[in-house]
Amino acid sequence: MVSRRRALTLAGAGIAGIAGTAAAARHLTTDDAPDPVTGAVAFTGAHQAGIVTAAQDRLHFVAFDVVTKDRDRLVKVLKEWTAAAARMTAGQDAGEIGAVAGIPEAPPDDTGEAIGLPPSALTITAGFGPTLFRAADGQDRFGLAARMPEALAPLPAFTGDTLDAALSGGDIAIQACANDPQVAVHAIRNLARIGMGVVSVRWSQLGFGRTASTSTGQATPRNLFGFKDGTRNLKAEEPDLLREHLWVQPGDGPDWMTGGSYLVTRKIRMLIETWDRSPLAEQEAIMGRLKGSGAPLGRTGEFDEPDFQAVGADGEPVIPDIAHVRLAHPDTNNGARMLRRGYNFVDGSDGLGRLDAGLFFIAYQRDPRKAFIPVQRSLAGRDELNEYIRHVSSGLFACPPGVTGSGDHWGSALFA
Amino acid sequence: MVSRRRALTLAGAGIAGIAGTAAAARHLTTDDAPDPVTGAVAFTGAHQAGIVTAAQDRLHFVAFDVVTKDRDRLVKVLKEWTAAAARMTAGQDAGEIGAVAGIPEAPPDDTGEAIGLPPSALTITAGFGPTLFRAADGQDRFGLAARMPEALAPLPAFTGDTLDAALSGGDIAIQACANDPQVAVHAIRNLARIGMGVVSVRWSQLGFGRTASTSTGQATPRNLFGFKDGTRNLKAEEPDLLREHLWVQPGDGPDWMTGGSYLVTRKIRMLIETWDRSPLAEQEAIMGRLKGSGAPLGRTGEFDEPDFQAVGADGEPVIPDIAHVRLAHPDTNNGARMLRRGYNFVDGSDGLGRLDAGLFFIAYQRDPRKAFIPVQRSLAGRDELNEYIRHVSSGLFACPPGVTGSGDHWGSALFA
Repeated sequence: MVSRRRALTLAGAGIAGIAGTAAAARHLTTDDAPDPVTGAVAFTGAHQAGIVTAAQDRLHFVAFDVVTKDRDRLVKVLKEWTAAAARMTAGQDAGEIGAVAGIPEAPPDDTGEAIGLPPSALTITAGFGPTLFRAADGQDRFGLAARMPEALAPLPAFTGDTLDAALSGGDIAIQACANDPQVAVHAIRNLARIGMGVVSVRWSQLGFGRTASTSTGQATPRNLFGFKDGTRNLKAEEPDLLREHLWVQPGDGPDWMTGGSYLVTRKIRMLIETWDRSPLAEQEAIMGRLKGSGAPLGRTGEFDEPDFQAVGADGEPVIPDIAHVRLAHPDTNNGARMLRRGYNFVDGSDGLGRLDAGLFFIAYQRDPRKAFIPVQRSLAGRDELNEYIRHVSSGLFACPPGVTGSGDHWGSALFA
Repeated sequence: MVSRRRALTLAGAGIAGIAGTAAAARHLTTDDAPDPVTGAVAFTGAHQAGIVTAAQDRLHFVAFDVVTKDRDRLVKVLKEWTAAAARMTAGQDAGEIGAVAGIPEAPPDDTGEAIGLPPSALTITAGFGPTLFRAADGQDRFGLAARMPEALAPLPAFTGDTLDAALSGGDIAIQACANDPQVAVHAIRNLARIGMGVVSVRWSQLGFGRTASTSTGQATPRNLFGFKDGTRNLKAEEPDLLREHLWVQPGDGPDWMTGGSYLVTRKIRMLIETWDRSPLAEQEAIMGRLKGSGAPLGRTGEFDEPDFQAVGADGEPVIPDIAHVRLAHPDTNNGARMLRRGYNFVDGSDGLGRLDAGLFFIAYQRDPRKAFIPVQRSLAGRDELNEYIRHVSSGLFACPPGVTGSGDHWGSALFA
């Protein structure tokens, strides 16, 4: 039998202590940094990893449908998933790769493609969708309807939405982020394998490049419009803001979500060929920022505050009334803030001669009714960027607080 | 105006000499290694870069249809593409990002998402498909029919093929490989932008993880079956074998291809959920190798030669008659060798509860009639792996020799 950890040890990497190190509880440090020796992000802690963790380079995201009616089988999978996630984030296999003892015909408990790869800052983050609590026909599928948070009410329709239902929603979401895509893909693939017969892949998304920083130590990356994205993001180093805008607080709703966060995903197709035909000045007016530096129009530094009152020599606002930076800004949205950690994607081509590319938007927040929903209403109605984008997929998930130790699992509070 | 090079310089990277360094001709060294200071792979040379270049981690591949009937417009795009590729592989923008001088309404000559990113060992490799020479209806579209190499005859149908015509073929292929996917995506996207109105994206493919080594200095990576892939690949350090199996030699066919190579692509969907349910011993018997070490069955080291004569205690061959390693081996195929540099892919899910994942197979060779075609015939008929894979896309392209200096372009010999 070859375990991933053993393969690493044999390779002489000298990091045999991975499991012990990473199994230590993640403390409420400012940045959830990977262990400097192993590169592993601790799996346990008050909050789930993968939210304020410094955004890794690659993403594999999956939404599952639960295909069983048996609550016990579902809970069993949640337990097995949590155990496998703890192993994989520590750089171990999901389970033994060799034949399972006593059952030589059993398939391996790990699929093998990550053998020899380090933890790569892998985080695995779980969330529950509205349909897990109550089916579209109103059915209380698993006796959870009374525990559904009001903040998890399905998102309203927004102006211009072109959502594909088959690519939207889902009963359970898993976000795997890592600096090596093979490690993120391996994680999702093994969870799907473990859940076979209980869950079924509804949709999944690979992201190749992060489009946001979640730590002050990270440079702001660029989206496929060529602009810096996420300059004004919530950061791990801002505990007061995280408490106010990111983590569900006692009394916000059902206790099982305290310490958790609500996840909104939107797959945003960018019409990049159209965008690429527009002049630089028009692109910058639409965004309200300079393409090169990322500075707000009229300012010089990326992190300068936009001056929404400034008026140019022509009497017009320096930052146009319908510029993206203005419409999305907290000042325009009653102070709304989110922690974004989206990814660029390219999914091949669309059959019409164009690349199928864009942004897989991911945002965590304390309450979508005070964050994503008002901001998206502001954008959907007026943002000139809408000419160049299409929202094709939407998801909303309640991500419970962190797992605190052995025996605990992602569903323990919800299903208690 | 912010150029990518200037952004780098401003960032204090101290590598202002990029352009000069990378513009130096690539010599026939053993490995086409990236420049140790800039990370750039030289664009010019006797052969195109991106073939024996040590396989980078990420891929963006695109096949274009030519939508013009105007030969001059096509040649103009090939010239512009070659110039842009030389710039981008050196870590520069495809063109100026600022407004084009004198035409303030013109869109930027670079899309911007790679600003600040290093060259990342980007290579851009071009090839011409059979349909560029002669359309399906026999039409000599650009006066090239007489110059079509016999080795470029369309591939035959293979047993079990389930090809999607919309994802197959193409008049021109561009392979962009880099260690940063954003750099590879940026390259393809800008070539598509430059070619607008002359070419149209037919299909495109992102690959997240290399599945082959093309240099002895690289460890053998794993495919999504969890096995090491490409152990017996042709390597950059084997000039005699490259001459015999990889590069088109004088007299092989039309002169314009001398020093070039033929590229075969196959998108191979893996039915990973089915594979994941099969026992380890069965997986290893199908592959003919151990999953952990990659050693041929009956041997101990990955690079040990398989012993196809060895018989076990049960009287059966240690390596089964229909094991993949046996059917694909040069000994079984009249000595056929190829240089493979494929990539793992995950394209979301398939709407049936499964991940849409597999291997994007890429192989370069001196003559497909003596390499890919006989090997694939051997595999298609008997390989037990066929139960777990589906070939859904196929491409064949003639990749001309390298560009040798300024003024030269990808189509110069073919269109001369």
